[in-house]
Amino acid sequence: MQHQTPAPVNCGGRKRLYKPAMPRDARRHFPKHPHPKPESGLWLYGLHAVRAALANPKRHVKRALLTQRAAEEIGAKLLGRVRHEIVDTDAVGRTLPSGAVHQGAALLCEPLPRRDLAATLSAVPGDAAGQAIAGRRLVLVLDQISDPHNVGAILRSAVAFGASAVVVQDRHAPPESGVLAKAASGALDIVPYIHAVNIARALEELGKLGFWRVALAGDGEQTLKEAVPAGDVAIVLGSEGSGLRRLVRETCDAAAFIPIDAALESLNVSNAAAIALYEMRRG
Amino acid sequence: MQHQTPAPVNCGGRKRLYKPAMPRDARRHFPKHPHPKPESGLWLYGLHAVRAALANPKRHVKRALLTQRAAEEIGAKLLGRVRHEIVDTDAVGRTLPSGAVHQGAALLCEPLPRRDLAATLSAVPGDAAGQAIAGRRLVLVLDQISDPHNVGAILRSAVAFGASAVVVQDRHAPPESGVLAKAASGALDIVPYIHAVNIARALEELGKLGFWRVALAGDGEQTLKEAVPAGDVAIVLGSEGSGLRRLVRETCDAAAFIPIDAALESLNVSNAAAIALYEMRRG
Repeated sequence: MQHQTPAPVNCGGRKRLYKPAMPRDARRHFPKHPHPKPESGLWLYGLHAVRAALANPKRHVKRALLTQRAAEEIGAKLLGRVRHEIVDTDAVGRTLPSGAVHQGAALLCEPLPRRDLAATLSAVPGDAAGQAIAGRRLVLVLDQISDPHNVGAILRSAVAFGASAVVVQDRHAPPESGVLAKAASGALDIVPYIHAVNIARALEELGKLGFWRVALAGDGEQTLKEAVPAGDVAIVLGSEGSGLRRLVRETCDAAAFIPIDAALESLNVSNAAAIALYEMRRG
Repeated sequence: MQHQTPAPVNCGGRKRLYKPAMPRDARRHFPKHPHPKPESGLWLYGLHAVRAALANPKRHVKRALLTQRAAEEIGAKLLGRVRHEIVDTDAVGRTLPSGAVHQGAALLCEPLPRRDLAATLSAVPGDAAGQAIAGRRLVLVLDQISDPHNVGAILRSAVAFGASAVVVQDRHAPPESGVLAKAASGALDIVPYIHAVNIARALEELGKLGFWRVALAGDGEQTLKEAVPAGDVAIVLGSEGSGLRRLVRETCDAAAFIPIDAALESLNVSNAAAIALYEMRRG
């Protein structure tokens, strides 16, 4: 940097003896606000997650960073909704936690607004006569499953098999995050992800709404097919470590097992959820 | 530290003028080998993974670090096989990558010896008449699925539904690791995990051994049930990003889909594998 001799300058009528001078070029590199207030919100990433968030009218979006290719994949129509910059891959990566598989797409947005279980389900046509199988309403209830990869995969299978909602316990579920949304591959913005304060009470509510509540447990008494009559069904899954809590299990109408080899204690919880959803839709 | 005046000392008949003196207490803190050679091998962790490795006669084990509680859970019989130390939880954690959910158990061992596909399958009774469903041989073939959490969950479901082997491509599969073994929850030491140099060639080999080879693909022509006759079956799964490679798919006898909602492009690959295995055993 080139140094110039300081000289008295006129500052709004007041004289200062010294003003540190700076060449015009150097000055440009100093940001106006060296420590800007961090942006509030949540960074989602990955093509499916970003596309689904932009397609979700309930999602409040703020801005996006995209590579040219990702922008083309997402399309002008969805991008019309959000202020976005076209940048290179590294610039997208620098915004995100290291190792995030972003596919050139990152979106800053607000977490989704909380939803009410009964109101959500009332928007889905029920099966009052308890006859339909393929058309029945399905709800998944997750009792303290905390791994975002597992919950993300479960959200994805919930959408794949047309579940009406995924209910989690407020204090023991993974918060909305980039990791969860990426694992859900867009499903977080499609199926209602409902936070209940108390899982047993949510199950009571589901019972009143006409859902048959089936706990999935290694020591269940029946297979899924035996345990589930026609009509609306809530499938209840516990954490891999400690399983279903006693009160949660007691609030269910039946306990079912998936027949597996004795060499293994249990399936991965998202794999068990996928099998249960598949079985419920098979008829 | 207290300093003493150096004095000539007798070293095996040769005189040295100065020996740096050191009080006895201080000397004790210098390890004999300040930089010991790092131990070779692989750290597995988690109760299920460690227990299964100790129960696997093919697994060469070196030493274990266990909390008192983990040692009791694993039991004296299995621990009779390995030199082990009882330590506190933190000491187990310090041996492992940060964040590893070790449940108080860590085992240093060698990777499993490589296995040959034909030799492995010849040890499992086949279904020469092609009649059996529940008793048929099942093999999973993974085409470039690289995420260790997904491959771990797939190994777990493979054991759960009695698959005879999981075949992966040598250069595009997750290596044996603590993460893979933990996600597999013991299954890595139960079901043969076979590395093939070339997946298409492994599929040709499976065809000669009498296996019906079904590719799982979103645009498959039939449902799994329609695509699979009675008898031995190999289910072929591609990576989530790019799917099955053309040559791999062309080597299969049929391509099947799992019916899912159009809102989603695909299931998580381990969830798809679990559903396929479940369907194959349902009959």
